[in-house]
Amino acid sequence: MIQPARASALTLADLEAMDRDDPLRALRGAFVLPDGLVYLDGNSLGALPRETPVRLQEVTARQWGQDLIRSWTEHDWIGAPQRVGDKIARLIGAAPGEVVVSDSTSVNLFKLLVAACRLRPDRPVILSEPGNFPNDLYVAQGLQGLSNGGVELRLASADRIESAIDERVAVVLLTHVHYKSAAVHDMARITARAHARGALTLWDLTHSAAAVPVDLNAAQADFAAGCGYKYLNGGPGAPAYLFVAQRHQATTVSPITGWLGHARPFDFVDEYAPAPGIGRFLAGSYPILGIAALEVGVDLMLRADAQSRLDKSRALSELFVALVESRCAGLGLEVASPRDAPVRGSHVALRHAQAWAVMQALIARRVVGDFRAPDLMRFGFAPLYNRYADCWHAVEILRDVLQTAAWDRPEFKQRQAVT
Amino acid sequence: MIQPARASALTLADLEAMDRDDPLRALRGAFVLPDGLVYLDGNSLGALPRETPVRLQEVTARQWGQDLIRSWTEHDWIGAPQRVGDKIARLIGAAPGEVVVSDSTSVNLFKLLVAACRLRPDRPVILSEPGNFPNDLYVAQGLQGLSNGGVELRLASADRIESAIDERVAVVLLTHVHYKSAAVHDMARITARAHARGALTLWDLTHSAAAVPVDLNAAQADFAAGCGYKYLNGGPGAPAYLFVAQRHQATTVSPITGWLGHARPFDFVDEYAPAPGIGRFLAGSYPILGIAALEVGVDLMLRADAQSRLDKSRALSELFVALVESRCAGLGLEVASPRDAPVRGSHVALRHAQAWAVMQALIARRVVGDFRAPDLMRFGFAPLYNRYADCWHAVEILRDVLQTAAWDRPEFKQRQAVT
Repeated sequence: MIQPARASALTLADLEAMDRDDPLRALRGAFVLPDGLVYLDGNSLGALPRETPVRLQEVTARQWGQDLIRSWTEHDWIGAPQRVGDKIARLIGAAPGEVVVSDSTSVNLFKLLVAACRLRPDRPVILSEPGNFPNDLYVAQGLQGLSNGGVELRLASADRIESAIDERVAVVLLTHVHYKSAAVHDMARITARAHARGALTLWDLTHSAAAVPVDLNAAQADFAAGCGYKYLNGGPGAPAYLFVAQRHQATTVSPITGWLGHARPFDFVDEYAPAPGIGRFLAGSYPILGIAALEVGVDLMLRADAQSRLDKSRALSELFVALVESRCAGLGLEVASPRDAPVRGSHVALRHAQAWAVMQALIARRVVGDFRAPDLMRFGFAPLYNRYADCWHAVEILRDVLQTAAWDRPEFKQRQAVT
Repeated sequence: MIQPARASALTLADLEAMDRDDPLRALRGAFVLPDGLVYLDGNSLGALPRETPVRLQEVTARQWGQDLIRSWTEHDWIGAPQRVGDKIARLIGAAPGEVVVSDSTSVNLFKLLVAACRLRPDRPVILSEPGNFPNDLYVAQGLQGLSNGGVELRLASADRIESAIDERVAVVLLTHVHYKSAAVHDMARITARAHARGALTLWDLTHSAAAVPVDLNAAQADFAAGCGYKYLNGGPGAPAYLFVAQRHQATTVSPITGWLGHARPFDFVDEYAPAPGIGRFLAGSYPILGIAALEVGVDLMLRADAQSRLDKSRALSELFVALVESRCAGLGLEVASPRDAPVRGSHVALRHAQAWAVMQALIARRVVGDFRAPDLMRFGFAPLYNRYADCWHAVEILRDVLQTAAWDRPEFKQRQAVT
């Protein structure tokens, strides 16, 4: 791993040599990456696997087009959520039968929050942190409104989360890797603390899965959910997934009791009966095209040796921070992510007073990260396709944009919504 | 329109002549239909439009692959749910801004049921009918469980629905076209009755949209939802849609308050504030691949003249019933759908003691319908690609299967789950 102190001595040739030695280098070729683009936004929308359009062609032209309705059994569409869920399980320290692909992260968080609260009916509090990914807070607020006072959202800053877990807390809802800062919560410690106080945990793994070490069962986590379109490379708005620890499956039920979560959906009886395992958290007919695309991304991730993948994630972000510190000093940037690699996810946030305009200028120079209000630029590092040399080019262009004030042009200052 | 009395005099040549005169005949070529297959299951999974794989190639290889994250604005991914929702609105008598594509039908029914119940907080009852599509009952049962006694599901048979609407009913939840029998509820009359008693209506349009006349606003319907994978030809597990009458939009909110239903999602503030219009019923990141495929199907539907489309739906099912009655008499079949076309949807259910085995034998002979427990075969008629001659071939093969007892073979009697 690159040490920051060495960064100022590094040359592009050094980084190109590291890319040649990268045990994962062959996997870059499995992705479509436009020529000359330094894509550091895989933490927002992962790159397209070359296989994905081929697979979609197979699922549409061949399966849907030719085999039509019988594809549900013949091509195991019916088993897709659990099949792909079992694959994702291997990336997040879960066992087979503990993960299922379904709906969106928001809907899954809703389902799991309700399930968790119903396991602790005498405890009204959902505990989270201010500045958590807003979606997670919104979902909790929606549940609060729905409960007529039965549920209460309590916020405590990251350093006070553990002490805020008391006997009124039903569930601790946290994003494992913070969407802005990339700060990593200690899943095992917080979960242990929650359990000691009789509370449960629900982890949003959106910025974690496949990018940082996650071991849900080692941490004895209760519930988790995450999206498919970031590091899993499942495509825009890819289906999400959810995790329910095996020990909770028989005693929890989704509030959205759709027919494909029924124990015998094709009996078409009037009375709901939950499927025996994780399947009870399914609801409506599942998005076969989306799951097919997601499976390609997950399969690619599983082709990489896990340790090499996690080492490279860390090495890339570590290198980026070191290069920024050594080559962009005095240019108005502040590293807004933890400097300590083990508590940082696979993206790096840089603060700059003109962050929006600087990011637009970078994009115009073919370095793609993203902006998060009010003053952060995010750069995500995807171990399967980003190169050490990408970090070099990104930082050199960033330095040039700042030194020449290239961002200070009207077209870079006009804000519009982006994801 | 074919009169049943004339059916016994009809010949295949007559029907082929009707196909030649069909004003929609050119649209059949817009779909992939395997040679020699009589596909009468478009009410379960609509056929593949030829354009869909092309569009998916464009959205994946070009948009996702080359333009990556900026596609959200550049290719208007961000506006897709409302853009396609506005198109679906034209098929169901809704106005622009009243329909949005999102989630699954189950999740949408959950959102709308909760929204409806919260508009009538002093009324505990969701009224539906026994034997309604079980999913809808399951979702209501889930909400009942969630409400700790605050919500109660009451069932009344179709002929007693109107008299069962009393001052305790918050919302009437009905599937407009029954999934088994194809019986059509009188949306305007039931809605008027509900409104006269202070109740609201939520219509499941899954078997209706694009297949039978639906005019939500003429009926003054309050809420509706439906799927994208049947007559809309959006593909397996296509995204669903929901309708909220404009007059309710400012006073209702989804229980699943995800970030893309926020008024300013990219401000990333901690407090939820619902988007001003129908957008507040969106939740998580939406399935761009699925919406792209759905849009192709909806666009095709809009290419057909609406009256021709609805006339042909009715003529096809009318012809099928007439042919069955005239050519399969005495073979153990019973028409389990209303005989009166205006109160029948675009599929026909036939009852037979060995329905499962008969359907398997039909499928082996390349006539595809589906089975619904315990004893029904369903045949769906899709006006854009089914032909009058298809009805002839289906009925001739059905007659042969029954006359020769071709269904009475072990391989046709082994049940497995299908959708």
